[in-house]
Amino acid sequence: MRTPPATVALRGRLLWFIDDPATAGEAASLRQIEDGIVVVADGIIRACGPADEILARAGDGLAIIDHRPHLVLPGLIDAHIHFPQTRAIAAYGAELLEWLERHVFPEELRYGESAHAEPAARFFLDELLANGTTTAAVFCSVHPQSAEALFAEAARRNLRLVAGKVMMDRNAPAALCDTPERGYEESAALIGRWHGRARLRYAISPRFAITSSPAQLEAAGALARAHPDCPVQTHLAESLAEIRAVRRLFAEAGDYTGVYERFGLLGPKSLLGHCIHMSEREWGALNRAGAVAVFCPTSNLFLGSGLFDLAQARDPARPVRVAVATDIGAGTSYSMLATMGEAYKVCRMRGQALDPLAAFHMMTRGNAMALGLGDRIGALEPGREADIVVLDPRATPAMAHRLERAGGIVDELFTLITLGDERAVRETYVMGVPSKPRDRRPRAA
Amino acid sequence: MRTPPATVALRGRLLWFIDDPATAGEAASLRQIEDGIVVVADGIIRACGPADEILARAGDGLAIIDHRPHLVLPGLIDAHIHFPQTRAIAAYGAELLEWLERHVFPEELRYGESAHAEPAARFFLDELLANGTTTAAVFCSVHPQSAEALFAEAARRNLRLVAGKVMMDRNAPAALCDTPERGYEESAALIGRWHGRARLRYAISPRFAITSSPAQLEAAGALARAHPDCPVQTHLAESLAEIRAVRRLFAEAGDYTGVYERFGLLGPKSLLGHCIHMSEREWGALNRAGAVAVFCPTSNLFLGSGLFDLAQARDPARPVRVAVATDIGAGTSYSMLATMGEAYKVCRMRGQALDPLAAFHMMTRGNAMALGLGDRIGALEPGREADIVVLDPRATPAMAHRLERAGGIVDELFTLITLGDERAVRETYVMGVPSKPRDRRPRAA
Repeated sequence: MRTPPATVALRGRLLWFIDDPATAGEAASLRQIEDGIVVVADGIIRACGPADEILARAGDGLAIIDHRPHLVLPGLIDAHIHFPQTRAIAAYGAELLEWLERHVFPEELRYGESAHAEPAARFFLDELLANGTTTAAVFCSVHPQSAEALFAEAARRNLRLVAGKVMMDRNAPAALCDTPERGYEESAALIGRWHGRARLRYAISPRFAITSSPAQLEAAGALARAHPDCPVQTHLAESLAEIRAVRRLFAEAGDYTGVYERFGLLGPKSLLGHCIHMSEREWGALNRAGAVAVFCPTSNLFLGSGLFDLAQARDPARPVRVAVATDIGAGTSYSMLATMGEAYKVCRMRGQALDPLAAFHMMTRGNAMALGLGDRIGALEPGREADIVVLDPRATPAMAHRLERAGGIVDELFTLITLGDERAVRETYVMGVPSKPRDRRPRAA
Repeated sequence: MRTPPATVALRGRLLWFIDDPATAGEAASLRQIEDGIVVVADGIIRACGPADEILARAGDGLAIIDHRPHLVLPGLIDAHIHFPQTRAIAAYGAELLEWLERHVFPEELRYGESAHAEPAARFFLDELLANGTTTAAVFCSVHPQSAEALFAEAARRNLRLVAGKVMMDRNAPAALCDTPERGYEESAALIGRWHGRARLRYAISPRFAITSSPAQLEAAGALARAHPDCPVQTHLAESLAEIRAVRRLFAEAGDYTGVYERFGLLGPKSLLGHCIHMSEREWGALNRAGAVAVFCPTSNLFLGSGLFDLAQARDPARPVRVAVATDIGAGTSYSMLATMGEAYKVCRMRGQALDPLAAFHMMTRGNAMALGLGDRIGALEPGREADIVVLDPRATPAMAHRLERAGGIVDELFTLITLGDERAVRETYVMGVPSKPRDRRPRAA
């Protein structure tokens, strides 16, 4: 584990949220300091305020890293991503179920070998940090080795990470299946080894209702009851063919959400990937449970699964918590910025408008709260862990040119999600330690 | 105008098309040489073949630029882009008609001044070349000065460009309106000055039926008859509100396509942007006319206009020619690679599959033919102009990592459109002259 330096002070244009601008309005939610300083000691934010005030209090003793004129925000958070699918991105031509069989399962087979999983974990976390993502909720393969490799690498980097091995015991190649008992035991062992160690949390991860037998879902529910502080992550209502298959497999459940309800997998710690094709009853069930729907826009489009309906999810009559995510490898970008640009488009196709402030709230404080980490990360508040990203809204010629027209903060944020990607990430701090990987180009320019 | 060096030989993995893989199949359409050389003299391709054969014939006299292991393809072509909208990208929250009024028209107003249009033209062509785009069909603003600035800059760079000033005489700010007579005369004067000069062609460009009176469309039709070798470019059936407005303005026309038919604007040189919401009668009319529907995927999504239906357009019962385009500034990327990645997604949302070979055909030979330039550009054939792009399918760590799994040519091409952008463009040759702009980052990394 890297040791953070005793005290770091980051100067720049600070921006974070203390509430949701989509419901509380901009004034009550946005905190913005045009020339501000975040003081970090031992990896924790100790103070955050206007530069002149911080400097007057601190005297000359403060070693400042000056990021002006760039934006300094809480690190970005990805609420749903698959560690063993980084080489299954850009897999051609299939909808969800065929894509899993043809492209994903063959790839995930390799993660049973630590010799494969360990370098893959280094690539994976490099890629997240290069994109300004400091926390993610991650699905590993069925093999405990894959989770082991990822947790070990995340611990070395002192990352706050949520992850779990998938549980799956049917409708997949035999070598990718555990059993209800083995899935339970292996998950429980990983919880024992990693949950709460360093900054790591374990997510109980039944893949989805198609690849888990009723007995395995029962076991997953028992595991969740035994470890009530572990999040549960799975997939829900992504494609119509998937929903039809679930209906055949669980004829008695009524609907797809009902399957997870029945096995005790629907609660305030449940992260449900996709939720594209949902009935009113199902939205109501998520609302009552306090569960989280995870919106994965590039994946929606790439697999042609459908368009997430953000307004429907947030219907004030029964609002459902929403997180946002890349969903690599059905998703096509590691960048949460680019992902929110695509979220905007999915909303436009639904006749909705996703405003740039709401988008930035979603990928910082919103996702932190969805992952149950709102007290630890997602805001530049004293006491929070100093996971911080530095963004340059003028990182490329096209972005700089765009911002000649109107350079207000909302324009800058919208330019960052519409045209931005990892090139806009100037630095990524993990507990106050600069952690953006450098010199990763596989070949010279 | 830059003078090309007498002889250049580019070595790399050559790839181009001699027919459309979507209809003729891969074997009859794809030309691929794993170690090939393109010999260019005076800007024209003189020979193209396996390296050993070319070297045996040429002896030692050939000065070779070795691009191995990168791909060497015909330069990319963008069939619909707006020069005065580069600073209107990422304009928040509106559908087509409101977006034009709130964001685009105020921006286009500035292009009446050469002092604004000239540096903008330099940025615009830099951006195209940085993205590997060597030819585009471009809408300028209503001001002749904007077309003048763009043509002059394109001539200096020896680019093959198709462009025209928009004609619009109503439903826009007064300062953005010409009249039927002025629009005709200014366009005719620009044709006289620029059409056929250097590598330039003039496109007669009535913006769309909403902003041109019947008298102006009549004048545009007369101009097209007077200059039968000039392409005509306009917009058709992009959004439902637009279609309703056209119905009100042209109640007698029957449908939107009928408006252009009636004024003699629908022919084999017509480039019709969007064509999202079309009746069977309208598709049939495009088929009979030999007109081109221009698919603009990122723009479809960004404005929420709808999803272009490629299979419907190509219905073998009455196939319509299709081109592809960025449609900056409603589009969100200058990269034709990224644009085709989004085209794939739009097709997926329609339950269709756009294969990577078809995608590369569309942005090279397909677009060349759509622009009436199939005999000049779009293929690595002797006699063609040497507009060439060099692409690296492993340009970023995420792309290189993806291609560890399966590195065949189709995987490489699909990786380029799914994860690629200007970073994958290693060089852009214009008539054999290296022309990718360097050192454009507005600030040091």
